[in-house]
Amino acid sequence: MTIVSNKGVILKAIPKRTPKADEHFGLVHRTIDIKNLNLEKNELVLRNLYLSLDPYIRFTLKEPEPVQTDQTVPLKQSVPIGQVISGFGVSEVVKTNNLNYEVGDLVHAPVGWEEYSHIKSSIVPAITLIEKESLKEVPLNYYASLLKFGGLTSYASLIAIGKPKKGETIYISAAAGFTGQMVGQIAKIKGLKVVGSTGSDEKVDFLLNELKFDAAFNYKKNDLNTALSKYCPNGIDIYYDNVGGETLEVAIDHCNQFARIISCGMISQYNITNPKEKYGIKNLENIFIKSICMQGFLVIEYIGTEIEKDFEKEFFEWIKNGKIIYKENVHVGIENTAKGFVDLFNGNNIAYTLGALDYDMIKSVTINPHQIQFPYIAVIKHPPKI
Amino acid sequence: MTIVSNKGVILKAIPKRTPKADEHFGLVHRTIDIKNLNLEKNELVLRNLYLSLDPYIRFTLKEPEPVQTDQTVPLKQSVPIGQVISGFGVSEVVKTNNLNYEVGDLVHAPVGWEEYSHIKSSIVPAITLIEKESLKEVPLNYYASLLKFGGLTSYASLIAIGKPKKGETIYISAAAGFTGQMVGQIAKIKGLKVVGSTGSDEKVDFLLNELKFDAAFNYKKNDLNTALSKYCPNGIDIYYDNVGGETLEVAIDHCNQFARIISCGMISQYNITNPKEKYGIKNLENIFIKSICMQGFLVIEYIGTEIEKDFEKEFFEWIKNGKIIYKENVHVGIENTAKGFVDLFNGNNIAYTLGALDYDMIKSVTINPHQIQFPYIAVIKHPPKI
Repeated sequence: MTIVSNKGVILKAIPKRTPKADEHFGLVHRTIDIKNLNLEKNELVLRNLYLSLDPYIRFTLKEPEPVQTDQTVPLKQSVPIGQVISGFGVSEVVKTNNLNYEVGDLVHAPVGWEEYSHIKSSIVPAITLIEKESLKEVPLNYYASLLKFGGLTSYASLIAIGKPKKGETIYISAAAGFTGQMVGQIAKIKGLKVVGSTGSDEKVDFLLNELKFDAAFNYKKNDLNTALSKYCPNGIDIYYDNVGGETLEVAIDHCNQFARIISCGMISQYNITNPKEKYGIKNLENIFIKSICMQGFLVIEYIGTEIEKDFEKEFFEWIKNGKIIYKENVHVGIENTAKGFVDLFNGNNIAYTLGALDYDMIKSVTINPHQIQFPYIAVIKHPPKI
Repeated sequence: MTIVSNKGVILKAIPKRTPKADEHFGLVHRTIDIKNLNLEKNELVLRNLYLSLDPYIRFTLKEPEPVQTDQTVPLKQSVPIGQVISGFGVSEVVKTNNLNYEVGDLVHAPVGWEEYSHIKSSIVPAITLIEKESLKEVPLNYYASLLKFGGLTSYASLIAIGKPKKGETIYISAAAGFTGQMVGQIAKIKGLKVVGSTGSDEKVDFLLNELKFDAAFNYKKNDLNTALSKYCPNGIDIYYDNVGGETLEVAIDHCNQFARIISCGMISQYNITNPKEKYGIKNLENIFIKSICMQGFLVIEYIGTEIEKDFEKEFFEWIKNGKIIYKENVHVGIENTAKGFVDLFNGNNIAYTLGALDYDMIKSVTINPHQIQFPYIAVIKHPPKI
């Protein structure tokens, strides 16, 4: 292994509305000479195995903004045109000049959408080692997001901002999305009444019959105000907002005194780039009339906190014991990564979306993929012939 | 004293927009037979001395809403037409069937806009005794709001929601209003850079030269976006929102990552009763992009907490030591109460608004009004001939 293919997905054009795989993304054919690559102190070369295709990445596909000295949060940084898209993934260390990592180590890391990533020393602190021992209990791909930022996002925001109390009512929009599914299931475990909305009858059925939500409805077929009156007769104590816009406005009307709104995403507004076309929310007076707390968050806020420790203890057990159902779409091959990402915005996915860069390689490093006992359904897309 | 006048201010019509004294309020001439009034256990009769004329009362002047069983917050209850307006005030106990109160005690209490209030036992827990000893240091009227809910509102919300850190920037809208003045002065004491907006050059001058704000501007003469770029070059860490609407929208654009928005009031929207005419806020995506916390509150949340104890210790000292400047408009006479209230919404007040029900009576119970050392300017309106 010396000079190998290192194809990458670049930003070809800034999407003004919903991104399209062919129009806004390009595949560049590059190579990397791993043997002769000179690594500075602490640097690594990673072979990327799984890429977590997350909606937040949409925000990095925009005109670069003037850098503000006080804003150093990496998730907000835009990707210049022609550059490889950034995200998080699971990777294998293939070359190291870092005493903390050996060749063959498996890590969760911020990487490019590319086959190999040359990790600069400034990025190394964001990398965490995946204990191989744990792979006897869960498959490797769970570390791309479920047991890392994806699961932590749902768990920490619900606990820290939502402050759920047994018997309260939570309403979750885009409830069949990955975060919605996790939040709903955690809320059920915590004793809440869980109500979710989603965009198809198939998904409603999934929420009700597989995830055991107390109520679920198709927002395309139901007036939201009527549905919330019906399914949340005691009002909403926690609104988990993945949607924003008019849904947020109606949910605010149904909020109880001291309600908490967890602002996780506003997918209804992401692809409207003209600020004047965005939906105007007219009932924010309720924030102070009802003493509502509406709060956004970054998952990195919770890294290293007590909440992360609780998450690692509780959530891992729930996953192992089958208390949480998790589905994923696996898009195999770097060529299919952009398509997997844009599929996030078409509303057809019921599962978490993962890019898997090489099916055979994944089989070889996923130590125990066939002895999984708990509910786990991978929907493999674009499978290579095997 | 047996049968005495007990005039009261009633709601005559529900104001659809800005309330008007003659159109929406009426004065009823009633009497009360204190001697022969039969008090149930724990009940009291209070002679009302000062009424705190607060903007929140505007919210009680609306169509009654269906009672929701889970919403028992009294501040939200609407006043039926023909009934006396409710608020808080400073009163003297004139009759008691309650072991905790003696005739002559001075109290802070939820009372009607009337000369005498018959206090039912369910209301008694909301009453607090004013120690007469403290009146050697501060005048009685300070207990109508400044040293009670008014001061606590500013202090507790700034500390609990704003979490101010030395060197941060706070922007306060309606900064020359009572809450704005207090918040700005507390923030200065806590080491923040304080920027305020208000509606006249006279008030700008007051904020800059009397309250020593770091910057202040007249929102009627300045484009808000330009002004915030100029006066908050490092962005806004805390936005203290008294205004809502477009001001909130522009402030959100200037908020830094992890900014806190304290939602104290939305005076720009209060008098728009048609929900469709309210201003639509289009940039709420920033709540989650910038991990902003926007929170409303009720001052009663802080009663009995550590924050209230800190307030009673710190704030009282600041007041006594002249570190906080406080001005008030005193509208004398029950006949002038409604006028004092509606003046809150015309933007001319630079001072806190207080109704004083009888000037002579006030002189007799305000133990030490003439030895006040700290900054204190009462602007007496409608003074009786004395």
